[in-house]
Amino acid sequence: MHEIFRTHLDKFVSINDEEFATITAYFKIISVRKKENLLIEGAVCKSHYFVLEGCLRKFFINNKGVEQTTEFAIENWWITDNIAYERQLPTSFYIQAVEKSQILVINHEAQEKLLSEFPKMERYFRFVYQRAYAASQMRIKYLYDFTKEEFYEQLCKKQPEFVQRIPQYLIASFLGFSPEYLSEIRKKKRS
Amino acid sequence: MHEIFRTHLDKFVSINDEEFATITAYFKIISVRKKENLLIEGAVCKSHYFVLEGCLRKFFINNKGVEQTTEFAIENWWITDNIAYERQLPTSFYIQAVEKSQILVINHEAQEKLLSEFPKMERYFRFVYQRAYAASQMRIKYLYDFTKEEFYEQLCKKQPEFVQRIPQYLIASFLGFSPEYLSEIRKKKRS
Repeated sequence: MHEIFRTHLDKFVSINDEEFATITAYFKIISVRKKENLLIEGAVCKSHYFVLEGCLRKFFINNKGVEQTTEFAIENWWITDNIAYERQLPTSFYIQAVEKSQILVINHEAQEKLLSEFPKMERYFRFVYQRAYAASQMRIKYLYDFTKEEFYEQLCKKQPEFVQRIPQYLIASFLGFSPEYLSEIRKKKRS
Repeated sequence: MHEIFRTHLDKFVSINDEEFATITAYFKIISVRKKENLLIEGAVCKSHYFVLEGCLRKFFINNKGVEQTTEFAIENWWITDNIAYERQLPTSFYIQAVEKSQILVINHEAQEKLLSEFPKMERYFRFVYQRAYAASQMRIKYLYDFTKEEFYEQLCKKQPEFVQRIPQYLIASFLGFSPEYLSEIRKKKRS
């Protein structure tokens, strides 16, 4: 399982086997069941999660009591509530497994130590955050620019495997649709 | 002017005077007039901008032909179209000065060289992107969770100086309001 992480690291930095062995000691690997929560609202956000296999999602409960999904993380993607993680504060989010998943976990203190022991990892996380930031800027543009229907069209076109893989009620929650409305749009698309 | 950047760097990394002198050689300082464009739609996004003094905004022209502001950058904030910058691609955004501003500019190639010559700067930019990413995740939550009116309330409460400083028609553009509608809300708030 660590090899999946090694492959991701190798895209950004060069790490030898001995260094990699030391680096992996900062992490643990956990298995999570479908719908298992890794983080719940009100808890201090202690960990940063890297998906080795499976899929996680982040959501909050809105003022109507409805789960609003704001983010998915599939293989090779990091996920946490970054503000709460950096400041070690209680979160207003949930992080939950969409599928049975294998997750690499690092705690905040361990990540700080890792970065000071291996400055190369600064470069790795610089890339991780840079790309995540760029993606979220594009997401913000879409939220302004597209109707929900257009956003769904865009998702189907650009990430068809993702749309196939994620249960429809979660895609609906991500788009801010009701599941019934998404089902109508899908019918219209097929006809 | 470089001292403003030095103060920002010192928050994240320790740099001595000699290193700082070498680092500043990678940047240039430019003065921009109010409403001057630093980047226009269709141009390759070559530069990353750090606001020393003043304010920049990023916007795109939506399909109704209206400017939609997605981001502001005031003092000590970096701004660019990150996807287009990293890949050196044409942008779909404009970056424009809201006020007369002093801007520190680095080009993509120079930033890459800087990072390889000064690994400490990996740490600096890791923090820059990490915080920007965390802020944009919170922004995405607000876009889902708040009505436009609530978002404006939030802005007035959390960043009153910002709301005072930025022209109202740009605040309206950022919130997705018409300027007339914002003016109505402000009247309601005062009464």
